Amino acid sequence: MSTISDVAKLAKVSVSTVSRVISGKGYVSKETQKKVLQAAQELAYSPNLIARNLQSGKTQTIGFITNSPLGFPNSFLGTFIAIANLHDYYVTLYFTNGDKNKEIDVLNQMKHRQLDGIFVFNRSNEWSVFESYTAYGPIATRYRINSKQIYSSHIDHYPIYLASLNYLYQQGYKKIAHSMGNPENRNTKARIKAINSFYQGNGLLLNVDWLFCETSTENNGNQLAHWFHHATDKPEALACHSDSIAVEFISELQNLGYNVPRDVAVIGFDNSDISRLMHVTTVDYSANLQAENSFVHLYNQLNNTNIPQHHLEYKLIERKTTPKINDYIEQD
Amino acid sequence: MSTISDVAKLAKVSVSTVSRVISGKGYVSKETQKKVLQAAQELAYSPNLIARNLQSGKTQTIGFITNSPLGFPNSFLGTFIAIANLHDYYVTLYFTNGDKNKEIDVLNQMKHRQLDGIFVFNRSNEWSVFESYTAYGPIATRYRINSKQIYSSHIDHYPIYLASLNYLYQQGYKKIAHSMGNPENRNTKARIKAINSFYQGNGLLLNVDWLFCETSTENNGNQLAHWFHHATDKPEALACHSDSIAVEFISELQNLGYNVPRDVAVIGFDNSDISRLMHVTTVDYSANLQAENSFVHLYNQLNNTNIPQHHLEYKLIERKTTPKINDYIEQD
Repeated sequence: MSTISDVAKLAKVSVSTVSRVISGKGYVSKETQKKVLQAAQELAYSPNLIARNLQSGKTQTIGFITNSPLGFPNSFLGTFIAIANLHDYYVTLYFTNGDKNKEIDVLNQMKHRQLDGIFVFNRSNEWSVFESYTAYGPIATRYRINSKQIYSSHIDHYPIYLASLNYLYQQGYKKIAHSMGNPENRNTKARIKAINSFYQGNGLLLNVDWLFCETSTENNGNQLAHWFHHATDKPEALACHSDSIAVEFISELQNLGYNVPRDVAVIGFDNSDISRLMHVTTVDYSANLQAENSFVHLYNQLNNTNIPQHHLEYKLIERKTTPKINDYIEQD
Repeated sequence: MSTISDVAKLAKVSVSTVSRVISGKGYVSKETQKKVLQAAQELAYSPNLIARNLQSGKTQTIGFITNSPLGFPNSFLGTFIAIANLHDYYVTLYFTNGDKNKEIDVLNQMKHRQLDGIFVFNRSNEWSVFESYTAYGPIATRYRINSKQIYSSHIDHYPIYLASLNYLYQQGYKKIAHSMGNPENRNTKARIKAINSFYQGNGLLLNVDWLFCETSTENNGNQLAHWFHHATDKPEALACHSDSIAVEFISELQNLGYNVPRDVAVIGFDNSDISRLMHVTTVDYSANLQAENSFVHLYNQLNNTNIPQHHLEYKLIERKTTPKINDYIEQD
């Protein structure tokens, strides 16, 4: 492959003159410009974009940190990459598998100018660690956090979860089990607050044995199905903080000989493809707009633009897993 | 942020001396080395990795070309990225949406040394276009192609599809519809060959109205469900070339009031998560090993190593959508 030096030699000019022609920066006479471009064409020279990035200090690349290839954030990630590509940005994916050092490696990539910005889908380090890297580039997340340095596009889970529980109540379900995320997360705290409001508001007593917080990200729904199978006092409905837990629960219950919704109603959260395919009632909370907001924030920071953000809204998507209680008709 | 010039100034040495210390290449006296490292530490200087890449000409980044965020190659992509990360390579995703020019853009990224290699999951350009770029870096694909320049990790679909059809036959299904991919693909051609062998071998007549080739990648299963709904002569089974088509078909049939397998049996292909969740009989063809082989090939090419490849095998995964015909018992 020919280099900038080859072009300079053939055009009988200096390397810096070729560089000025290629970058369009600095004065070069028309005649010299023509000589350089002819030489470049003759040698099929293509400018080294790494070198060009070195000048601008930009890579047009955003790092996306997520836990693992399993339970992959499909639609969110897809939207994030699609909008990035539309703005001529690229997305590099990092699977950190909950390893704090791997997260630091990615943050250092931004420090070393191999990434322009970072989106945090999952994280293991404290937020203060991430904050200390915002000196090197913008960081955004989907988590609901209180940070002046890190951007967060989130939606309040309190009214959403309260609406889900009230809906189940209207459908006749009073014995409800709850599958929730990491109790450290503000989203989980908002859900616990919603549970309190719901039980107090309806004069019901909460069965704390039916309150599950996530300890591991994998197969949580599967474990819940086995818990359901062995429980002597079974709930009438399970409310899940993600569709993936809801569908794993339903699928494993089917393996154990149960039927959803006849034996237990299920409501998910995410409105993912899989919830649609398996007819699971869920909540759409504008995850695609959340992904778009996150990228747009990074873009605005990096380009001094002011593209407006979307307002996030939620909507209950009623499907087949939450009929009126005792109304279930065997499907043929 | 401090630059290499700042370090040189503080250490009272030249920029090229700092560069020699940072890169570890070329002679520098112990004393000078110490001065430079002290200055670098004092200024919290971190070497610009873009500049470092410029020296090595490597980005440690592989481009992954796929069609769209919808129907995303989840498990394959996950494995590909996980194995790449393990070898200190990064993966940048490009959604080309079937746009030939976008594919060329990605290929040019490799030409301009922003990517070390490329994996082609979907493509729109002729293979000859891709071949012309192998001068700039290695290219691999999952497609079964005949090319000396492009690597392909594939499995022969002929024996696989013949085994699927023979299995359906043993289960009692003789009226079989076939959902296949792009007729231009060698995989599709192998499947058509398997269909011919199957019908001739069993003295059956092929109903050509039941032979579907993919015209669009989206909602093909959905369309097939509506075709089934309106067909006066309905098949007893549908054999699909992907799990995603199988599950879309099943889900939409359920919306239309049908039951799988009571009304029609279904066999998929991929052994994806969604087929497991929806209990769909399918074929596992070592997609994860295929992803690993593809990365390992690129890695071997880029690093002059010789990590061995896996042999791909297939296995029929029997689940609930293909019981013995007329043996279907209403599940409770």
